[in-house]
Amino acid sequence: MNANADSYVIGVDFGTLSGRAVVVRVSDGAEAGTAVHEFAHRVIEDRLPGDGVRLGPDWALQSPRDWLDVLRTAVPEAVAAAGIDPSRVIGLGTDFTACTVLPARADGTPLCFETPERPHAWPKLWKHHAAQAHADRINALAAERGEPWLPRYGGKISSEWEFAKGLQVLEEDPEVYARAERWIEAADWIIWQLTGVETRNVCTAGYKGIFQDGSYPSADFLAALNPDFAGFIDKLGHDLSSLGGLAGRLTPEAAGWTKLPEGIAVAVGNVDAHVTSAAADAVRPGQMVAIMGTSTCHVMSSDRLAEVPGMCGVVRDGIVPGLWGYEAGQSGVGDIFAWFVDNSVPASYTGRARQRGQSVHDLLAELAAAQPVGAHGLVALDWHNGNRSVLVDHDLSGVIVGQTLGTRPEDVYRALIEATAFGTRVIVETFEAAGVPVEEFVVAGGLVKNPFLMQVYADVLRRPLSLIGSEQGPALGSAIHAAVAAGAYDDIQRAAAAMGRRRENAYLPDGRAADAYDRLYAEYRALHDHFGDGRMLHALRAIRNEARGSATEPPNGVRP
Amino acid sequence: MNANADSYVIGVDFGTLSGRAVVVRVSDGAEAGTAVHEFAHRVIEDRLPGDGVRLGPDWALQSPRDWLDVLRTAVPEAVAAAGIDPSRVIGLGTDFTACTVLPARADGTPLCFETPERPHAWPKLWKHHAAQAHADRINALAAERGEPWLPRYGGKISSEWEFAKGLQVLEEDPEVYARAERWIEAADWIIWQLTGVETRNVCTAGYKGIFQDGSYPSADFLAALNPDFAGFIDKLGHDLSSLGGLAGRLTPEAAGWTKLPEGIAVAVGNVDAHVTSAAADAVRPGQMVAIMGTSTCHVMSSDRLAEVPGMCGVVRDGIVPGLWGYEAGQSGVGDIFAWFVDNSVPASYTGRARQRGQSVHDLLAELAAAQPVGAHGLVALDWHNGNRSVLVDHDLSGVIVGQTLGTRPEDVYRALIEATAFGTRVIVETFEAAGVPVEEFVVAGGLVKNPFLMQVYADVLRRPLSLIGSEQGPALGSAIHAAVAAGAYDDIQRAAAAMGRRRENAYLPDGRAADAYDRLYAEYRALHDHFGDGRMLHALRAIRNEARGSATEPPNGVRP
Repeated sequence: MNANADSYVIGVDFGTLSGRAVVVRVSDGAEAGTAVHEFAHRVIEDRLPGDGVRLGPDWALQSPRDWLDVLRTAVPEAVAAAGIDPSRVIGLGTDFTACTVLPARADGTPLCFETPERPHAWPKLWKHHAAQAHADRINALAAERGEPWLPRYGGKISSEWEFAKGLQVLEEDPEVYARAERWIEAADWIIWQLTGVETRNVCTAGYKGIFQDGSYPSADFLAALNPDFAGFIDKLGHDLSSLGGLAGRLTPEAAGWTKLPEGIAVAVGNVDAHVTSAAADAVRPGQMVAIMGTSTCHVMSSDRLAEVPGMCGVVRDGIVPGLWGYEAGQSGVGDIFAWFVDNSVPASYTGRARQRGQSVHDLLAELAAAQPVGAHGLVALDWHNGNRSVLVDHDLSGVIVGQTLGTRPEDVYRALIEATAFGTRVIVETFEAAGVPVEEFVVAGGLVKNPFLMQVYADVLRRPLSLIGSEQGPALGSAIHAAVAAGAYDDIQRAAAAMGRRRENAYLPDGRAADAYDRLYAEYRALHDHFGDGRMLHALRAIRNEARGSATEPPNGVRP
Repeated sequence: MNANADSYVIGVDFGTLSGRAVVVRVSDGAEAGTAVHEFAHRVIEDRLPGDGVRLGPDWALQSPRDWLDVLRTAVPEAVAAAGIDPSRVIGLGTDFTACTVLPARADGTPLCFETPERPHAWPKLWKHHAAQAHADRINALAAERGEPWLPRYGGKISSEWEFAKGLQVLEEDPEVYARAERWIEAADWIIWQLTGVETRNVCTAGYKGIFQDGSYPSADFLAALNPDFAGFIDKLGHDLSSLGGLAGRLTPEAAGWTKLPEGIAVAVGNVDAHVTSAAADAVRPGQMVAIMGTSTCHVMSSDRLAEVPGMCGVVRDGIVPGLWGYEAGQSGVGDIFAWFVDNSVPASYTGRARQRGQSVHDLLAELAAAQPVGAHGLVALDWHNGNRSVLVDHDLSGVIVGQTLGTRPEDVYRALIEATAFGTRVIVETFEAAGVPVEEFVVAGGLVKNPFLMQVYADVLRRPLSLIGSEQGPALGSAIHAAVAAGAYDDIQRAAAAMGRRRENAYLPDGRAADAYDRLYAEYRALHDHFGDGRMLHALRAIRNEARGSATEPPNGVRP
């Protein structure tokens, strides 16, 4: 493929705090250059920008201007860093966090550009968790009516997804809801900006939009939730686009932003986790890819359809065309470790780490690694940011059990790492029990760089770990999709084999440690079952929200 | 009482880390001078002094030399600080932690003076918790046989007490056990050193030595535990001495140590918590005195005998002659807050406290106090040092529930304070449910100085709090007992009325806060019931001990 040897594609990964562009050689996936743009507004959690309207608990918004700035800055900077002529770029692919979703006009204008003072006009970031009550109602009604799509989502849809967030908008700010001619994933909105064409990708429509077997939930169902919600699906897309497909061609305006050639291929929008499986060359059935960062997302293709309790979803063609794509996830992983380091590690430790020129994480990991398994006497639940699988309940919260007056920070740090590994094991066991075998466990994401954590996972899972071979998994995966959209490869599998990479058996389980972890895991399961019913954790959440509401503002962030 | 106007008594309080002497005017309890001696060996927890034999988990020892040093240094320093002529001192009283107990020769020589290399030759401090397995056997056998004394201890004796610790010595170091001609409370041992007379006080014999209705557990019962344990009570005392009684007269040698007049009255030994009720002038039926420091001890006299589940004990004449003395306790209170500040508060907080010239405790209390009740969304179990009442299980450990990525140090600090208040409420409710009314709640101990914590307790308990009027409660209480022993007052009640003091209604409950706490308390009770069975917490403790044992040393600290 001589043409590919001279050709490049761009992958752009839109994350929670920044966007990253990477320039990738089409022939072999070599990464020629990269650049990052930090979002100026970061995550909008406390107050709206500008006039400072205060948001309620569990809100999380983003600004579309930050996304556009990534196209204007990170893309040309990555090309410059690669030192290539932009004319050699044949395609652009993107991936986004999901479900990150916004209300827009029929021409794509985000409503927050028109009424920036209204919280519900802004894009709701994936981790906006204030629509739990709406998700609960959707789930209860769907279960009652036996809606056929419900088991495709493990029996529960998430408060993070399109319908829960949309229902929240309707009921808390009906005016914004009425003005929203489109309710669109940021993954598709950005493609619209690049190509001038509105498309809807099969991945977010399936995983986040409850699109199954050719249709969305019925108008009848939606009307039963709220009569004014009956027409919600008119705001969504109905002609879905395949992953790796060509969404359109780069417009002159977008070419101006990106400094890329007008008219190059732009791939159909996609999701960060799902494109990563291509970057790891792990798109065959049974290869579970865990993208471990602030949270963890598990994606796996399979040739069989099963109803896995508590999975995030199963979607036909959801990762690669022709297979069933499964998704599961853990809401808090690296986020929990970062929270612990920021809020619970004393000066004696931070000072010692500084003296030794290491991060606090590395110091804690080093001290924790010196302990025998179980010597801390602790077990924790990793629900500080809720539970996405297999309980699907964002109103759960963290638990730690077994602290004594001798418990030290490295003990708790280790227990939290173990808790996330136990959470992964619950997911793997649930898939296998449902008849969907997990044949290889592939790790991607920032946490691959933590050897102690990787070994804990190998031991807890009793499996070898494969590691992705790129530090820019999602961006590389998007570039692979761009190569397919540009016609350089026939399909995602072939492109992934040529451009993606992973290292097998990078960590092997230690039998003795694994035996010891089995005992702690039994306690984790017991805690999981006890607190998983949500009775106490929901009560504490309700008490908290009432207490905060009485002291400050109403909880939903909307001023009538 | 003109004589008393010129007379003074000395109270000496032997604590966990130091001993304190106070010089008190007999007529009105005015404190003329005080001095503290820090124990050179502090608490011996990791290794023995000198040769460094390593101790197992949960061990805690003290050195008798530290106690004698208190007599040599703190007593003369307190008299010097008071600026009085030592000839005006008419009596000396002491109180001790309990059960702090040691093996000794028939002449009173501590075995650790002879064989300092053997862990079991040393005094076991009250918080030595390595005899839990022995306590469990004692409890199981006593329950099986229906021993009549068992209900007097709430249905369980503690691993802290004389029989459990004694059985541990027998079974782990029979040679030391055989050489121990006496098994004696430090409270009585120190009196022996002062007077040359071996006495045994009714208080420790009753609360820690299972002496009820005139006798110890039967030889038959002890033989069933272990045939070699049958003669254990021969090492104890059988002629018990009343509280406030005269144990003997200061010997020439002890007069030399203390620089006090030879021959002055020395009161019968006593326990820190129990003498404090006299210092607070709270020795009438229904006055519950909570001595709140590193741990909390609750003492209360009553005219009625009842079997209160999980109380530490009820002893006839156990606080003042003629009434039933009740004791309950919380194993960890201030200890838990100190552990949290030392291990879980980041540099940003410690730096801020330093800048503002306040303690980290004060900063956290200030931040915590600014929150509405329940706004942290947390509930914790205060079992970091086990549970003394009402579960009587030292192998329990701490639990915290409800943490999110937004949880801050002041949230956890507040939740821990509340947990200890909830623990107190469990105790008060258990007494009342058993038909022993609590009519006044009187707080003594170092934590009275924390207004935020006091208000939490008033709100959680829904009761006014009375506060002791002295900062040296135990030492003042010992001085009051010395005044009775010296004949200056007819009984403890009269002496307490003249020399003790407290402030009533110092904190009043806020009805709205109390209502809010009721909801959190319901969750605390649910956690208490769930984890109180010990299944999970014992499993974690067992895993921990095995893991530590395999990595370092066998758990019981004895080298065969």
